[in-house]
Amino acid sequence: MFDPIEKLKQYISLQSVSTDSSFKEGMNQTRDFVSDVFNQMGLNVEIVDTPLHPIVVAKREGEPSWPHVIIYGHYDVQPVDPIELWDSNPFEAVIKDGRIYGRGAADNKGPQMAHIAAVAELLEAYPELPLRLTFVIEGEEEIGSPNLLPFLKERKEELAEADLVLLSDTLSPSAEQVAITVGLRGIVALEVELTGPNSDLHSGLHGGAVYNPAQALCELCASLHDKDNRVNVPGFYDDVASVEDWEREELKRLGIEEVAYKKSLGINSFHTHPGYSPFEAVRYLPTLEFNGLGSGYQGEGSKTIVPSKAFAKITCRLVANQDPVKIGNLVKQTILDRIPDGITAEIEAGHEGIPYLVVPPHRENSPANYPSRLEQAFDAADSAIAEEFGKAPLFLREGGSIPIIADIKSELGLDSLMIGLFLPEDKIHAPNESMDLSMLTRGIKASKKILANLAGIG
Amino acid sequence: MFDPIEKLKQYISLQSVSTDSSFKEGMNQTRDFVSDVFNQMGLNVEIVDTPLHPIVVAKREGEPSWPHVIIYGHYDVQPVDPIELWDSNPFEAVIKDGRIYGRGAADNKGPQMAHIAAVAELLEAYPELPLRLTFVIEGEEEIGSPNLLPFLKERKEELAEADLVLLSDTLSPSAEQVAITVGLRGIVALEVELTGPNSDLHSGLHGGAVYNPAQALCELCASLHDKDNRVNVPGFYDDVASVEDWEREELKRLGIEEVAYKKSLGINSFHTHPGYSPFEAVRYLPTLEFNGLGSGYQGEGSKTIVPSKAFAKITCRLVANQDPVKIGNLVKQTILDRIPDGITAEIEAGHEGIPYLVVPPHRENSPANYPSRLEQAFDAADSAIAEEFGKAPLFLREGGSIPIIADIKSELGLDSLMIGLFLPEDKIHAPNESMDLSMLTRGIKASKKILANLAGIG
Repeated sequence: MFDPIEKLKQYISLQSVSTDSSFKEGMNQTRDFVSDVFNQMGLNVEIVDTPLHPIVVAKREGEPSWPHVIIYGHYDVQPVDPIELWDSNPFEAVIKDGRIYGRGAADNKGPQMAHIAAVAELLEAYPELPLRLTFVIEGEEEIGSPNLLPFLKERKEELAEADLVLLSDTLSPSAEQVAITVGLRGIVALEVELTGPNSDLHSGLHGGAVYNPAQALCELCASLHDKDNRVNVPGFYDDVASVEDWEREELKRLGIEEVAYKKSLGINSFHTHPGYSPFEAVRYLPTLEFNGLGSGYQGEGSKTIVPSKAFAKITCRLVANQDPVKIGNLVKQTILDRIPDGITAEIEAGHEGIPYLVVPPHRENSPANYPSRLEQAFDAADSAIAEEFGKAPLFLREGGSIPIIADIKSELGLDSLMIGLFLPEDKIHAPNESMDLSMLTRGIKASKKILANLAGIG
Repeated sequence: MFDPIEKLKQYISLQSVSTDSSFKEGMNQTRDFVSDVFNQMGLNVEIVDTPLHPIVVAKREGEPSWPHVIIYGHYDVQPVDPIELWDSNPFEAVIKDGRIYGRGAADNKGPQMAHIAAVAELLEAYPELPLRLTFVIEGEEEIGSPNLLPFLKERKEELAEADLVLLSDTLSPSAEQVAITVGLRGIVALEVELTGPNSDLHSGLHGGAVYNPAQALCELCASLHDKDNRVNVPGFYDDVASVEDWEREELKRLGIEEVAYKKSLGINSFHTHPGYSPFEAVRYLPTLEFNGLGSGYQGEGSKTIVPSKAFAKITCRLVANQDPVKIGNLVKQTILDRIPDGITAEIEAGHEGIPYLVVPPHRENSPANYPSRLEQAFDAADSAIAEEFGKAPLFLREGGSIPIIADIKSELGLDSLMIGLFLPEDKIHAPNESMDLSMLTRGIKASKKILANLAGIG
């Protein structure tokens, strides 16, 4: 009998911090653990080397006519700092009041375990299950999955013939309301550095004669939004995918009040486009965000200089249909067009990620030739979640970015069924991370029903 | 015979870095040296204790009817870092190609020595010279003269009955063209900190819903100037003293070309109010300058956050007739009026300094009842400098601030005759500081003529 909670406790105890090379041993142990679990389930395990942390691939082969599901997860976790804020050892799973605590409990060891356990239980019950499975469990998600796209390209032939990807690495609004994420924002990053005089100047001797680059930066950055917080870059919204009525209706069932959201952020007012609630704005609209600013003297007291330089770190979150390369170039050109005399600019391009959107079946805007097994999976998830969690799932876009989901779509042509099994209170990436065990147990049941349905035995 | 160059070499060799407590011994030795010099000249020396570095006061008493000149200087110097950029030991005077090198050579030991030597030589030649003198040589100029104003207040009775203050701690444009500084800008500092959400937020999950304080800061700061670089704060220019035609004419003789100034700053364009040259702008107009900006992530690469906070360090340079307290309040109130919903602001007031302006005699805007001994001193300086340097001095306002000059005016009612004896190439506050020895020798002669004239023997 597969014991998911016992397995998860072992999984959490393994120290798989991918960003820190001192955790090399922990990464190896974790990979061995994952391999063993899949071996015990009778899958064919392969460790695929990458320049850094290998990918664990575990397969259940079968007839070409059987449905083929790729199940994605990651065995690496975030660092545990600040360690002094943890109430227990982050690498020792502790169960308390129906929650399991430890680094990675919710991101992503627990949610991933729902699908592993579902497969293990299904295969115990139905050794002849007519379903092909490929687990892809990577070890570099927390450092940006630098080697996953190369892996997808290399294995394109065998992976692209799958029907869909199933994963749980997204958020649900509450334990009563599961969300299926159908959209993720893309991203494009750039950094602008302005230079005025060739060195910091005495603000008495030269102030009033020269363009202060900190002032020029503020004027430039201020020009990038209008008073309604729309991005003031010509063409920025040209390709933005429209929002359907069903999406807005679905989102109204989110169950979070604006007042509570404001309170949690400590603000007295939102700042959204007219006609968009804050919940809509983060999902349906692109942004241009200043992630950092710097110029001149930042220490205690004052230093009377005209700084030589000023910089802004900018990222744009993009919605479906927007191209990060195109938007990056638009923003860059707009900035260059607005540099005043007396100031020079350098713009450095950063990382990019494509936005993602899958329209669920049976919506007014669903594609005409909906892939039948994807449709079957969405339908099965809809009813399985309704049965196990007591409420039908919400099909929602999210504001965050998981670039690999868009990469899987663009490289393999596959859509993803993303079932949210962690919750806002789970403290992912923070001290005292935990997972609601009822999300795990119900998640296992739902996953089993979805997979069984696809295999034609549900 | 007083040997000014020998004395200056000794003076430079003494390590009087006021800001660094490890130079306590050097400060003591320097103070003793200055006292000894004045004692040897037959003056009555008093060491006036302060909470940090004492002030050396040296007096030549005399008949109440004799003119009384206060000569100001400072015996402390800037730190020598970065020491590796010095071509010689900063505390060992080296004479080369007509210049004397070492920390403090130009700021202020050399220029100050011109007046000490002038007095020494005059007193040797005319032991009965009918002139009262009070040297005030402080040890805290490089740390903002925190104890000079309290000293002025305490000694107000004896100091206020002087006729004027004579000093050389300002710049002349070249060795051929001495400037007499007649105006200094004041200053008022403040720091604005904006807060949006109560912590840094994930820019995917929340971006688009909340006001980014870095964006709000840019919008706020951008609102503080119009496109002609005028400060956009209602009332900011209300009290600005007018500029007289003679001032603009005088300034045209500065002898520095705009092209050369631009080149030295590495910029392709100035950014001044229409109708003001860059040389006029820094002297006749107040500014609002961003000395530093900071927000969010400033390290390598990118971090996809909506920052919680953003700050700007601001100083305004003020011109004659502007009140730092009034302007500080105007700017503060304007900023508070412009804080949008969703953002809160905290403003911290910094230091303040009053602007200073003395109109030389015989100008269209000179006061009607010009103090006769001040008039005599200005006239004597005019002709003495013309004789010794070959060209009449320019009477110019400067863009920098020396708050003690305005303090002396407001506390004692005395104006200052500021004769520029250091030059742009002297590298004050920087490695390889030096002074042109011809500025010293000619400065001694000019100072002697001015003092002798005041004493009625010129």
